[in-house]
Amino acid sequence: MRISELSARSGVSVATIKYYLRERVLPEGERISPTQATYGEAHLRRLGVIRALVDAGVGIAGVRNVVAVLENPPAHPSALLGAASAAVSPPDGDTAELDLAPALALLARLGGDADDCYPGQIAAVARALATLERAGFTIPEPVLAAYVEHLGSIAEAELAATPTGSAEDAVRYVVLGTTLVEPLLLALRRVAEQIAASRRFGHD
Amino acid sequence: MRISELSARSGVSVATIKYYLRERVLPEGERISPTQATYGEAHLRRLGVIRALVDAGVGIAGVRNVVAVLENPPAHPSALLGAASAAVSPPDGDTAELDLAPALALLARLGGDADDCYPGQIAAVARALATLERAGFTIPEPVLAAYVEHLGSIAEAELAATPTGSAEDAVRYVVLGTTLVEPLLLALRRVAEQIAASRRFGHD
Repeated sequence: MRISELSARSGVSVATIKYYLRERVLPEGERISPTQATYGEAHLRRLGVIRALVDAGVGIAGVRNVVAVLENPPAHPSALLGAASAAVSPPDGDTAELDLAPALALLARLGGDADDCYPGQIAAVARALATLERAGFTIPEPVLAAYVEHLGSIAEAELAATPTGSAEDAVRYVVLGTTLVEPLLLALRRVAEQIAASRRFGHD
Repeated sequence: MRISELSARSGVSVATIKYYLRERVLPEGERISPTQATYGEAHLRRLGVIRALVDAGVGIAGVRNVVAVLENPPAHPSALLGAASAAVSPPDGDTAELDLAPALALLARLGGDADDCYPGQIAAVARALATLERAGFTIPEPVLAAYVEHLGSIAEAELAATPTGSAEDAVRYVVLGTTLVEPLLLALRRVAEQIAASRRFGHD
């Protein structure tokens, strides 16, 4: 298909498609004349992944990381998922001042260790715990146990549903499932708390 | 105690305490001379709640809402928890364009209905679902079922651990537990996903 049809089918403007071509996150089309190229279904799928990443707030550098994984898919599925996940992970940042021990203890309770995760992911847990500590807020132990158990179950369910059709589909699922689903989870938790309170204490 | 001691014990500067007095979120002390007042343990507890709210990103208007609840505690505990939760909830915003039906369907699956929740909480669920829809991302049904089940369990565990000593303690727990815990939950989910992937596919 011509670039105009690729634009119409993907909903991405011609100018933006040309930007992705220049940034080399979308491969060149097949040249059919000195001024024209033709594009295939693979370009359409790739555009879908790029738009999903961009809509999820991933910058062009993160997009390039994911694309690099798609073009040289690692032998292990966990590396594929890991690279997609790393592209939307918080940067490692400065961890020199950060006490990682409480975060690593939570990792162990989830059945994993530091080797399973990216440093940025562990640092994010450590930072969240440090914020609670500074505010003088201690999560009661049964609540922390509930977080570990139920977030573990959620992760298992999410992973079990990863599409296996193509690397593009898997990456799209991981990237969007990680980032776009977060506001839903937080909103659902607040609603669930309110429902639990109504059930326990009745309506006001 | 004098305002200087209140400042030392609370870690809040005298200037900021005076600001809270002017904003009427901290009650006046007992006047012992035309220029001096004395403060008690209740002031210290109240300052703890105010700081927790401010640290959680709640503005002075939200602080005033919570304080109003503390000063006239409703008969029902659910109203107390609800008001604390409302103070840290997203504003209702413009819901005219929003399709609430999918959000209400999720509420029903959580065992509740619109009467249990604030409009802003339901709107937040609806907005999160609309974002996923726009991105063309469908949460697989078993995954959605896992969200409903496990977030419901998390909410039950959190509610069961609500301190009952004083209204201040309960409000502090709800406000901080709702807001400050959110980054931890998101970070733990990402780590849990990575651990689940390692377990399922092995290390790369």
